[in-house]
Amino acid sequence: MFIELDLQSETPIYTQLVDQIVEGIASGVLQPGDPLPSIRSLAEDLGINLHTVNKAYNLLKQEGLLQVHRKKGVIVQPDGMPGVTEAFEEKLRRQLRSLAAAAAVRGMAEEVFAQESRAVYREMIANRGRG
Amino acid sequence: MFIELDLQSETPIYTQLVDQIVEGIASGVLQPGDPLPSIRSLAEDLGINLHTVNKAYNLLKQEGLLQVHRKKGVIVQPDGMPGVTEAFEEKLRRQLRSLAAAAAVRGMAEEVFAQESRAVYREMIANRGRG
Repeated sequence: MFIELDLQSETPIYTQLVDQIVEGIASGVLQPGDPLPSIRSLAEDLGINLHTVNKAYNLLKQEGLLQVHRKKGVIVQPDGMPGVTEAFEEKLRRQLRSLAAAAAVRGMAEEVFAQESRAVYREMIANRGRG
Repeated sequence: MFIELDLQSETPIYTQLVDQIVEGIASGVLQPGDPLPSIRSLAEDLGINLHTVNKAYNLLKQEGLLQVHRKKGVIVQPDGMPGVTEAFEEKLRRQLRSLAAAAAVRGMAEEVFAQESRAVYREMIANRGRG
C-alpha cells in the first residue's frame, strides 16, 4: 500500500488517509473496482487505531468514492465517480479561500497562487494511464 | 468580532479560528497592529474552550502573524508579515494537492480548478484598502 502517515503533522490521521486515497484515485494508482485493504489489516500495517481507518473509509463511502461490500470488501467506486455538486464547490471554495489567505498575507501574488494550483493538479494526473 | 464558527463542521474549531483570522488579515479587515480580543473574552464570546483559542493564537504567533504582549495583549503583526518560506510552499502544495485530487476525481478540469483558485484569491483581497 502507498500510504505514508506523518504522525507529527497537525493534520489528523484520518484526514491524511482520506487525502492519500483520493490522490491515489486522482492519479490513477487506484482504479475503479480496485480493492483496498480491510480496515483491520490497514490499521495493523500503519500501526493506527481501527476507528481511524473506519472513519476515513466511511467518509469516502459517504462521498461516493468507495464501496463497502460484505463479501468483496472495500473497493474503489466502480460505478462512476460522483460529479461536482454544489456542496462540493462550496467546500472547495472555502478550503481554497483559506489557502489563498495564507498565501496572500505572505505576499504571494494571485498569479503565482493560480499557477501553483494548476501545477499541482497537472503533476498529480501526469501519470494517469501509465500504470 | 467577525468570527463565525460552524460547530457541525469536520474542520476543528481552532483551525476555523486560524483560517478566519488569516482571512481577516488577507482581506485587510485586520490591519497590522490591530488588537484582537483576549483569549478569555474571545472564548466567552464564541462559547468555546480557552484552550481552543489559545491553540489558535499560539499557532498564529508561531507563524509570525500575531504578537502576544503582556500589556498590549494580542495584536496583528505590526513588524512586517512573514514571507513565502520553503516550508510554507511545501505545506501549501501539499494542501493544494489534496484539493486538486478531490476536484480531479469529480471530473473538474485543470483549467476550472486553476480559475477557481484565482477567483477565490481575487475576491478575498477585493476589498483591501476600502475599509
